[in-house]
Amino acid sequence: MKIALAQINVIIGDFAYNTRKMLSYIDKARKQQADIIVFPELATTGYPPRDFLEFSDFVEKAENSIEQLKKASQDIAIVVGSPTFNPVIEGKDLYNSVVFLYRGEEIYRQHKTLLPTYDIFDEARYFEAASRWNIVEFKGKKIALNVCEDLWNLGNENPLYTINPMDKLMPYQPDFIINVSASPFDYTHARERIRVLKQNVKQYQIPLIYVNHVGAQTDIIFDGGSLALGANQKVYKELPYFEETLEVIDINELQNPLREQQQPKEKIALIHDALVLGIKDYFGKIGFQTAVIGLSGGLDSAVTTVLAAKALGKDKVRVLLMPSQFSSEHSVKDAVDLANNLGIRYDMVPIQHIFETYLDQLNPLFEGKKFDVTEENIQARIRGNLLMAISNKFGNILLNTSNKSEMSVGYGTLYGDLAGGISVIADVYKTEVYDLARYINRKHEIIPVHTIQKPPSAELRPNQKDSDSLPDYDILDTILKLYIEGRQSPQEIMASGYDKTLVNRILKLVNRNEFKRYQTAPVLRVSPKAFGMGRRMPIVAKYLE
Amino acid sequence: MKIALAQINVIIGDFAYNTRKMLSYIDKARKQQADIIVFPELATTGYPPRDFLEFSDFVEKAENSIEQLKKASQDIAIVVGSPTFNPVIEGKDLYNSVVFLYRGEEIYRQHKTLLPTYDIFDEARYFEAASRWNIVEFKGKKIALNVCEDLWNLGNENPLYTINPMDKLMPYQPDFIINVSASPFDYTHARERIRVLKQNVKQYQIPLIYVNHVGAQTDIIFDGGSLALGANQKVYKELPYFEETLEVIDINELQNPLREQQQPKEKIALIHDALVLGIKDYFGKIGFQTAVIGLSGGLDSAVTTVLAAKALGKDKVRVLLMPSQFSSEHSVKDAVDLANNLGIRYDMVPIQHIFETYLDQLNPLFEGKKFDVTEENIQARIRGNLLMAISNKFGNILLNTSNKSEMSVGYGTLYGDLAGGISVIADVYKTEVYDLARYINRKHEIIPVHTIQKPPSAELRPNQKDSDSLPDYDILDTILKLYIEGRQSPQEIMASGYDKTLVNRILKLVNRNEFKRYQTAPVLRVSPKAFGMGRRMPIVAKYLE
Repeated sequence: MKIALAQINVIIGDFAYNTRKMLSYIDKARKQQADIIVFPELATTGYPPRDFLEFSDFVEKAENSIEQLKKASQDIAIVVGSPTFNPVIEGKDLYNSVVFLYRGEEIYRQHKTLLPTYDIFDEARYFEAASRWNIVEFKGKKIALNVCEDLWNLGNENPLYTINPMDKLMPYQPDFIINVSASPFDYTHARERIRVLKQNVKQYQIPLIYVNHVGAQTDIIFDGGSLALGANQKVYKELPYFEETLEVIDINELQNPLREQQQPKEKIALIHDALVLGIKDYFGKIGFQTAVIGLSGGLDSAVTTVLAAKALGKDKVRVLLMPSQFSSEHSVKDAVDLANNLGIRYDMVPIQHIFETYLDQLNPLFEGKKFDVTEENIQARIRGNLLMAISNKFGNILLNTSNKSEMSVGYGTLYGDLAGGISVIADVYKTEVYDLARYINRKHEIIPVHTIQKPPSAELRPNQKDSDSLPDYDILDTILKLYIEGRQSPQEIMASGYDKTLVNRILKLVNRNEFKRYQTAPVLRVSPKAFGMGRRMPIVAKYLE
Repeated sequence: MKIALAQINVIIGDFAYNTRKMLSYIDKARKQQADIIVFPELATTGYPPRDFLEFSDFVEKAENSIEQLKKASQDIAIVVGSPTFNPVIEGKDLYNSVVFLYRGEEIYRQHKTLLPTYDIFDEARYFEAASRWNIVEFKGKKIALNVCEDLWNLGNENPLYTINPMDKLMPYQPDFIINVSASPFDYTHARERIRVLKQNVKQYQIPLIYVNHVGAQTDIIFDGGSLALGANQKVYKELPYFEETLEVIDINELQNPLREQQQPKEKIALIHDALVLGIKDYFGKIGFQTAVIGLSGGLDSAVTTVLAAKALGKDKVRVLLMPSQFSSEHSVKDAVDLANNLGIRYDMVPIQHIFETYLDQLNPLFEGKKFDVTEENIQARIRGNLLMAISNKFGNILLNTSNKSEMSVGYGTLYGDLAGGISVIADVYKTEVYDLARYINRKHEIIPVHTIQKPPSAELRPNQKDSDSLPDYDILDTILKLYIEGRQSPQEIMASGYDKTLVNRILKLVNRNEFKRYQTAPVLRVSPKAFGMGRRMPIVAKYLE
């Protein structure tokens, strides 16, 4: 029996596009004599559809997509994820289902049992959990169908759920498992996914087909990496990361594959490729082609610009240099060097005149007051205004260049350097941005070495350095990671050897600056704990303050 | 038996403050010979604590608060909501519990069964649902304890849950119910709450004590309105809205109260009071005293300024007038009149010079391009920059003045008039802002009549009117409400008699402008469906486009 794994990239809510894409993949699979084609979780709607699911009209459109797929199932079985209505009045109105279609009929729908409701996931918001389980019999094989999280309660030290749906299916003696997924990328995920799925194969002793989404949905990036696992726990096939693809495998070959096929999982390379896809899909899916970036000569804007040029093409990225009287002599040169290395357009609009006009106009109100963070912020907001003017006038999208370290402690100006349609590297700590820069330069110098070597500075007052107000980034990033990713208490962090005053100061900064993060662009998510929907913090609060 | 209802206003995560407050209320209740004092749901932490709950340290601090309360329970029983650890490894790590303390001991903890996971609620993200139920016996009475939503599955046409926890408790023949709640305000809520609670009394035939939070937690406003309901379904006592208070009632008087005591529930008056409390607590709880507002002479900034002056005091609010060459002659006069009526400080910083400097500097890039929305946005962002400069220099918080109609369709400039720390009226449609203005002026003219009467305009180009780009607000608001609050499909909205082209255009604008709403301040929530955490929409999507 041949099974086609369709690792596709869909657009949320674009039912016509998504269905058309699935029909074309069904054609391809049919040409390769596949008996079954498998699409990911909620493939009709895209994942996550969020509160669109509260519109009956939206779910009816998904049901309509299923009707269209049904017609294409005459000679090939189709396994596809879609939201379905709960026919019972009690409980949530929807199920997150995997539907099995064949010969123009719906053979079975299995609802999802384990509904992830943590980090970026909100499934208990929409879906009722399954309360009945069964297998599908097809061409002499018994197939256990399930959806993503249904396999993720195994091999977990602190299981989130009290049941494993596969335990309900094993009495029916399934021959193999098909799992349809929407399992987003982070730099730990590909490894973790294989570990968890192998755990299932170990437990249930049957082969496993796992089909994941690929592509970015605003901030959430799906890496694909769909899998066919042998009954002997070997990875028979791992589909490419970050690419839409179709792969046909013979289920018989999964009994006892001899060798294991896996791709490299190097953290910085994965982050790099994820961010490029994140930018590409953000633009492509909303129908924009060109980006504008404020290029300071510093590291963050340099890395962001390189990623944008890779994602969109060098002729689709323009940068704006906006030096002030506080810019160092090297800033403009470093920025120009990068633009030239990439072959992208740059323009320069110095901000000193505008800045002075603001100060003139504010002088009656500010008289006698010292230069302080106010004047720094005015400059940053002039730059934000200029960049948005370019964006508005020429139909570009402004890319935000803030990194995760500064986003954490609020080292940035709201409506200034925190502006932009999407934050490219705001889930990448400064120390990791350095790694990314070195990775980008691994073959030849794209980012000027001077940009990488000079001490980081916002250049908003004379001789400013990041290190004036922040500890060294290797210390800062470690503390931040223990707190943000690790959710450790101040005491636990101090027990790792960090100074009490410093730890308290940093954690307080993180909590206090929630108001800034609340108002910034979506952040391309590459870590297990990114800012945005996956980390929901009160703004008005006094914890650790 | 005397029961003290402690309708308190706490600060999220401020365990010392919250515990101290509870101890002082326990003293007050003791002086009034209360046998039991009841605090709201999650009173130790404040509601909603959101992802602070993922920090064990945070929950341990809540347990520590319970320890302190225990010591105060020698001669008075304490009923209080708090998060507690789930001792079982499987399932979520926490329960949302109501704890009964007496004579220095914990007598019982009942966990919450129904975990609201919709709109602003995320309880399934953190909590395991109760799977055992029991009553507390105290001084000869049997008490059924539960938490908020546990009573909300009754009298619901489309029940969200498959069980009612009170059904599990009725076999123990409780004498009355104590429900601890965190049930946020919207202008429909006070009425709905009484309807649902009466439904419970009707079903279970015993008196009911309901204690709610009061106070604002960033965007979420709790109105209080705690209740003592007689077994005959009469409202024996409804506690005040928007006020911290303690009320002691005798449970015997709830058997058959003769008259019903309720407060007025007029929509606009409730919204008014809620917004004043929302501003007051936002400032008070983060330790700021003064606000700055951009006063245009238009309706939205006028209403916001009045609300701020009521919340903070007239000497704590300052306004900035920032006229341009496109401002109408009346704008400045209307703004000054309002400032004078309120007795607040105003300053004027014209933006024409700054605007011209931007145009000068951008001229090399914009040469040959026409005046378009770019130049409009530059002006709005200059104003945003000036307001934030005042905010930074003098330690004020900028209040955002956008209304819900313009937030819906994206009629506003990111980083410009959409700037601010908190959005005061962004959950109030323009037609309701008019109602608020008339309500404010009900005794004498505070908002200049001309501000209310003139046609709304952004004044960003010559002779601009809102009606150039938007339909009349009464039509726009009705369509928006059917879509946003009602979650109706385009077809359903058209069936109410609205033009197809118009409906499609408006709905598309709403969906397309999600990117703007994502980057704006928290919105004080007064309707059943506000922008923010209660409405989670994809940004990159193509539904209804």
